[in-house]
Amino acid sequence: MRRNPIITLTTDFGTADHYVGTMRGAILGIAPQSRIVDISHEIRPFQIAEGAYVIAQACRFFPPKTIHVVVVDPGVGSGRRPILAEINGQYFVAPDNGVLSMIFDGAEKVRHITSERHFLQPVSHTFHGRDVFSPVAGHLAAGVPASRFGKRIADYARLDFFHPTRTGKRFWTGLILHVDRFGNLITNFHVDEFPDVPRRPFELNIGLHKLTRLVSSFTEAQPGELVAIVGSSGYIEVVANQASAAKLLGCETGSPAELVLY
Amino acid sequence: MRRNPIITLTTDFGTADHYVGTMRGAILGIAPQSRIVDISHEIRPFQIAEGAYVIAQACRFFPPKTIHVVVVDPGVGSGRRPILAEINGQYFVAPDNGVLSMIFDGAEKVRHITSERHFLQPVSHTFHGRDVFSPVAGHLAAGVPASRFGKRIADYARLDFFHPTRTGKRFWTGLILHVDRFGNLITNFHVDEFPDVPRRPFELNIGLHKLTRLVSSFTEAQPGELVAIVGSSGYIEVVANQASAAKLLGCETGSPAELVLY
Amino acid sequence: MRRNPIITLTTDFGTADHYVGTMRGAILGIAPQSRIVDISHEIRPFQIAEGAYVIAQACRFFPPKTIHVVVVDPGVGSGRRPILAEINGQYFVAPDNGVLSMIFDGAEKVRHITSERHFLQPVSHTFHGRDVFSPVAGHLAAGVPASRFGKRIADYARLDFFHPTRTGKRFWTGLILHVDRFGNLITNFHVDEFPDVPRRPFELNIGLHKLTRLVSSFTEAQPGELVAIVGSSGYIEVVANQASAAKLLGCETGSPAELVLY
Repeated sequence: MRRNPIITLTTDFGTADHYVGTMRGAILGIAPQSRIVDISHEIRPFQIAEGAYVIAQACRFFPPKTIHVVVVDPGVGSGRRPILAEINGQYFVAPDNGVLSMIFDGAEKVRHITSERHFLQPVSHTFHGRDVFSPVAGHLAAGVPASRFGKRIADYARLDFFHPTRTGKRFWTGLILHVDRFGNLITNFHVDEFPDVPRRPFELNIGLHKLTRLVSSFTEAQPGELVAIVGSSGYIEVVANQASAAKLLGCETGSPAELVLY
Repeated sequence: MRRNPIITLTTDFGTADHYVGTMRGAILGIAPQSRIVDISHEIRPFQIAEGAYVIAQACRFFPPKTIHVVVVDPGVGSGRRPILAEINGQYFVAPDNGVLSMIFDGAEKVRHITSERHFLQPVSHTFHGRDVFSPVAGHLAAGVPASRFGKRIADYARLDFFHPTRTGKRFWTGLILHVDRFGNLITNFHVDEFPDVPRRPFELNIGLHKLTRLVSSFTEAQPGELVAIVGSSGYIEVVANQASAAKLLGCETGSPAELVLY
Repeated sequence: MRRNPIITLTTDFGTADHYVGTMRGAILGIAPQSRIVDISHEIRPFQIAEGAYVIAQACRFFPPKTIHVVVVDPGVGSGRRPILAEINGQYFVAPDNGVLSMIFDGAEKVRHITSERHFLQPVSHTFHGRDVFSPVAGHLAAGVPASRFGKRIADYARLDFFHPTRTGKRFWTGLILHVDRFGNLITNFHVDEFPDVPRRPFELNIGLHKLTRLVSSFTEAQPGELVAIVGSSGYIEVVANQASAAKLLGCETGSPAELVLY
């Protein structure tokens, strides 16, 4: 067994039911020295893209060998495969539905988990978080090599919802990746892809609203003023100082956004 | 002190206030090497039956010697006793109000906790989670034998809300044990008690709705279709694929359910 | 590195976004043996006084050397300083905005954190929880002495919202410090400051309601009856047995309260 292995959990199970507590038990029953760390359990039910965004933001700060369990799984009980991915020195245990798309870096090794001896038996049709993903993470934490869980595959699901589309010489169409607790709107325009935004005139159109001002800190905006900002994950965000941009603009996750560069 | 003892918490305290953080402090102040694991803090206030359901589902996956603290305690400050139960190799610290009813297996050893030297003094009248249950769990984790906390008792509270009542040759009346985040309705008809349900024609009546179809996975149902399924805890559930059965049926925890077997 | 250092988190980030999970990663990336313990992440956004109340209630139960990270930070990205305080054998990492006011005891040592080599680079303008406070806590947990993070200062922010004002011979004006999950109203009248309340006639005026009855346990009140009680933190609370005093009185955090002693 590794010394105090770290296992993170990202799910759409919420925290009111017994589901997450039961997953923790299933892990600790197999690897009692694990330290279980929550990323979020409030992914909106079945929203794979939101789960993909959340795990991608958090995972890179964890130490090497961390095991990330990601369960946003509308296809539970159908034929979709469970996978184990090795990416940049960390492990990811998840359904094969694209929820790891924002982490794949082209060098990932992905395995189809088929070793049923590492599952909790009998495997239910509705709770693979308990019966498949948690016990696999537990056995991995307890020292079972990744290769024992199944063979490498190349045809795993990759989604590409998170790159904007160029729609004209100066026009890109994107979307709101995530609305956070403060009502900040995180767009999918990343400063690495649009390095000119902080330096040149631009227009960011969200709903009927046009933004042209980029600030470098919330406090540069007037209370309630809508401005753009390069957020902490590198995506351009629309925020209102001490107010909810989402409420002011009537936007939600998935709403369209248009960027015009001059 | 045991090596990194595991202590789980199940409460109706929510996570917004300081109450659960304070309980964690009270445990770690006594047993600093403990690992504290949450089951749920979103039991609806004072709902003993819901707490009983949640801890019963989660506890059995944890390793032996796990200490479970369960605080759903409408009678705090009154005369109700604190108890320490040993059940199937694990420990449970809880008020004596029936919240452990679904775990008792007939072989449990239950003690009335009377050793006030293990409490935080002065004991408040309103927060035994901090002053009684957490410190007792801490001392237990630190190696104090169970017998030091008090004498065994036989007259502890047992509730029987979770078994259906037979109301006719083919008729049973039960209830909705729990409504989960997804709006799935968990009934108290357990497949161990009703093994014929998956094999023979049945009717499950909830509100004005009659269900006769049992599926084995969510994905067998049409989106929004109401079906029955044997859930992950063995209870028959009423679910709607990617929709909320609770909303469709206007049901909540405690609503009646009727089963007819042909 | 200390053995399994304990780091607590108190924020207004909520648990739905990746923010808290990312902070946990930033800590564990630096001090992988840390045990991270939540106090609350549901401080209402930007409510410094509420954060001050919550951390003050919970912190004293944790063992010596515990590191408390408190991030309620409306001024993130502006010039407000990050501070490291040593208080009564524990450490506190927080913005210098008064959020530690209820813990300061006159003997605290407070440092302005200036050692940028302990930050995650580049430091964002919007997420110092990840880039400043968590890594400082991580390095402290990993054994860096407090003196390495910056010089002691004397002009740190202290707020005094939590003491009542005397407004007449027998009159004091206070406020509701906090409304908890159960709708209990925690006033800022502390029994140490008003030891006569349990012994002499009093009036507590909240909104249009006058309370004159003090009970010692919830169960002494009739269901739904409004009464005063000395709460578990020593503050006088207004509660309704198995009902929400906040709903019955239409009160919220910050609402005024008046105490009259006869």
